[in-house]
Amino acid sequence: MTELGGDNGLYYDDLRIGQRFTSKTHVVDEEQIKAFARQFDPQPFHLDSEAAKDTLFSGLVGSGWHTAAITMRLLVEGGLPVAGGIVGAGGELKWPNPTRPGDTLQVESEVLDLRPSQSRPDRGVAIVLSLTRNQRNEVVQRLTAKLIVRRRVRIMRRSAPGVIIYLFIGRD
Amino acid sequence: MTELGGDNGLYYDDLRIGQRFTSKTHVVDEEQIKAFARQFDPQPFHLDSEAAKDTLFSGLVGSGWHTAAITMRLLVEGGLPVAGGIVGAGGELKWPNPTRPGDTLQVESEVLDLRPSQSRPDRGVAIVLSLTRNQRNEVVQRLTAKLIVRRRVRIMRRSAPGVIIYLFIGRD
Repeated sequence: MTELGGDNGLYYDDLRIGQRFTSKTHVVDEEQIKAFARQFDPQPFHLDSEAAKDTLFSGLVGSGWHTAAITMRLLVEGGLPVAGGIVGAGGELKWPNPTRPGDTLQVESEVLDLRPSQSRPDRGVAIVLSLTRNQRNEVVQRLTAKLIVRRRVRIMRRSAPGVIIYLFIGRD
Repeated sequence: MTELGGDNGLYYDDLRIGQRFTSKTHVVDEEQIKAFARQFDPQPFHLDSEAAKDTLFSGLVGSGWHTAAITMRLLVEGGLPVAGGIVGAGGELKWPNPTRPGDTLQVESEVLDLRPSQSRPDRGVAIVLSLTRNQRNEVVQRLTAKLIVRRRVRIMRRSAPGVIIYLFIGRD
């Protein structure tokens, strides 16, 4: 990587612990649940409403990975407005309740921690908790993600191998 | 839930700590990466090979959630043969390396821990580590999942509210 492009989102330096963000909503229907399952999680409780009745879930439910993917879409489309995009190194994931057909999902995120990178002055790590809830306010996913977020610096030039000059980018 | 149907897979009682499983392989191409991104993670480094060159990744990479979804498919299709299907309550997820177009992914899983349910004699919790590797043997995903696995018991009848009689299912 050489230079980091400009962006309207928030940089690491703009984030504060306790800061919160709310996404728009997404309605999950039966066809979406089955389409995701056919591609990535072909199990009866995600594929077949009749067969799902006799399973642990007593009915059709979305794959947890589908809930995770929808959550990501909601974060990318304004739910977590970080500069340069949402880049995750990993995280902790819980699905306390299943997503069911007809559910309206929304994600609320909170910055839990911020750590500047020791080795790379152009980035920091943000720990962000994202709770995905349905219309009954039940949590269907609890994600604590470790995100790599750009700092307000720009790499100017590499004057010699291993030497990089950084320039601070002022706040608008 | 009333009764748990029969299945050819492994029950909780058949699992052992240290047991390992290997999935088949899956080749990820550029079109799959872009299709997943269009639906769930529409960011330049997942959507556009040209634009991706100037990002953190220096080229097109798959969404981490795409890697997770492919991993699930490989687990469901023989990579983790548990009875009644793979039901996850959550887990810990790391993406040490990105998935790139042309990568061949394969998942190796290991049972790390086993805990019978205290309240439900018909199930147990298995902690399973699943490492997804590419053809260069680099780990693209490290998933430590908490799975709900059926025990070799069958609910016989509810003789009174709160009273359930369980029957042990013999090994074939």
